[in-house]
Amino acid sequence: MARIKLTVAYDGTDFSGWQLQPRQRTVQGVVEKAIMKITHAPARVHGSGRTDSGVHAMGQVAHFNCDDHWCSIPWQRALNGHMPKDVRILHSEVVDDDFHARYSARGKVYEYTLWHHSAFCLPQRRRFVWNCGDVDFETMESAAAILLGTHDFAAFQNVGTVVKTTTRTITSISRRPGITEHETIWRFEANGFLKQMVRIIMSCLVACGRGKLSVEELQLILESADRSKAPATAPPQGLSLISVHYP
Amino acid sequence: MARIKLTVAYDGTDFSGWQLQPRQRTVQGVVEKAIMKITHAPARVHGSGRTDSGVHAMGQVAHFNCDDHWCSIPWQRALNGHMPKDVRILHSEVVDDDFHARYSARGKVYEYTLWHHSAFCLPQRRRFVWNCGDVDFETMESAAAILLGTHDFAAFQNVGTVVKTTTRTITSISRRPGITEHETIWRFEANGFLKQMVRIIMSCLVACGRGKLSVEELQLILESADRSKAPATAPPQGLSLISVHYP
Repeated sequence: MARIKLTVAYDGTDFSGWQLQPRQRTVQGVVEKAIMKITHAPARVHGSGRTDSGVHAMGQVAHFNCDDHWCSIPWQRALNGHMPKDVRILHSEVVDDDFHARYSARGKVYEYTLWHHSAFCLPQRRRFVWNCGDVDFETMESAAAILLGTHDFAAFQNVGTVVKTTTRTITSISRRPGITEHETIWRFEANGFLKQMVRIIMSCLVACGRGKLSVEELQLILESADRSKAPATAPPQGLSLISVHYP
Repeated sequence: MARIKLTVAYDGTDFSGWQLQPRQRTVQGVVEKAIMKITHAPARVHGSGRTDSGVHAMGQVAHFNCDDHWCSIPWQRALNGHMPKDVRILHSEVVDDDFHARYSARGKVYEYTLWHHSAFCLPQRRRFVWNCGDVDFETMESAAAILLGTHDFAAFQNVGTVVKTTTRTITSISRRPGITEHETIWRFEANGFLKQMVRIIMSCLVACGRGKLSVEELQLILESADRSKAPATAPPQGLSLISVHYP
């Protein structure tokens, strides 16, 4: 048996997220189907984590097992030949059997793109941004600073999700200009993220930037560990999984 | 009667081009419908020119007439409220009756985005680029240089189109890096363009960049004024109408 690691990019717009679901178009489902077309055997693809419906990826990582004689085929090209254009394999490689896309991951990078123009969002960018209108970047950066480091992020997790621990370490939150003059890209690096964590943090930062939430109130939300204290989750289309880091 | 000038952006992917056609989804059709929803009267929208199916716009310009009492409404916002998200009015203003989106235009700017990676195109960019693989930029620039200035561009016009003259003046062709490391944006400025002119020129420049066409052969194509001498038209999705210039 051989294990293959894949780096996967997708436009999440027309997917019901990463994870396989009955009667839904999912990225995992599309990749598994493409592998089966090549090997004619059922395949189980393990991603580094789920991405929600509408969320994009530039560098999702996944792995799957195959018989040894499939080991040396050019998987990247072969899979791309069997998949729709909104998913592409960017890279494939043979890895050791102890590599696991999810359990071996030591960190992830997400980016969230905001659009700032109350009157319109450019149609060409609408699938990849959240039009949050005018915000004050300095206030958002002050708010972001209190989230850096190791905290219990239970207040920033989708309700109803069960995990061993809700403690995570955010190592960096940074901002840079986007593709057009109306965009900013917020980059989040952590040892891991809870379900919807980036989107809930983003909605908090935007609330701060709009003057609807103070930095002190954000501090209280963090300390409360209570999801109901934080604003509604930011929409999925602004979010993209950029990379997953392994030892 | 008042005349309103509109600046229009659209994601051309799901449109059968700008121009009204029976039973087709067109940008002109969508804008006219939105005006009618406001004024409850039929409206005729005149664009600066047609864009083909799949071609985008950042700054298409159009005008229409309305009764004087509609003159002072906030057309930009009002129209956006009645249109699908793949078309947005960026700006609206009242203009003199002698302004005509097409006949008053003195120049246009188009941009064409190329993707250079033979193994894949990033899904997020697939609707906005042509994946032409590896090309030599210096050769393309040498080829572009011979097209600058005033020429009969009959060889670079869609077959079967009838126009008064096929002479145009290209004032600038320039290249800059695109959004990602795999993209380059080619910018074309001229006093006007023939039907499919930018896409045919682009396919010639790419053929030069691939070593399939020499600069001398491109010179002969230009001089031939014969469309059949030039390569197949480059695909529409890489092209965007950036702006239209008026006196």
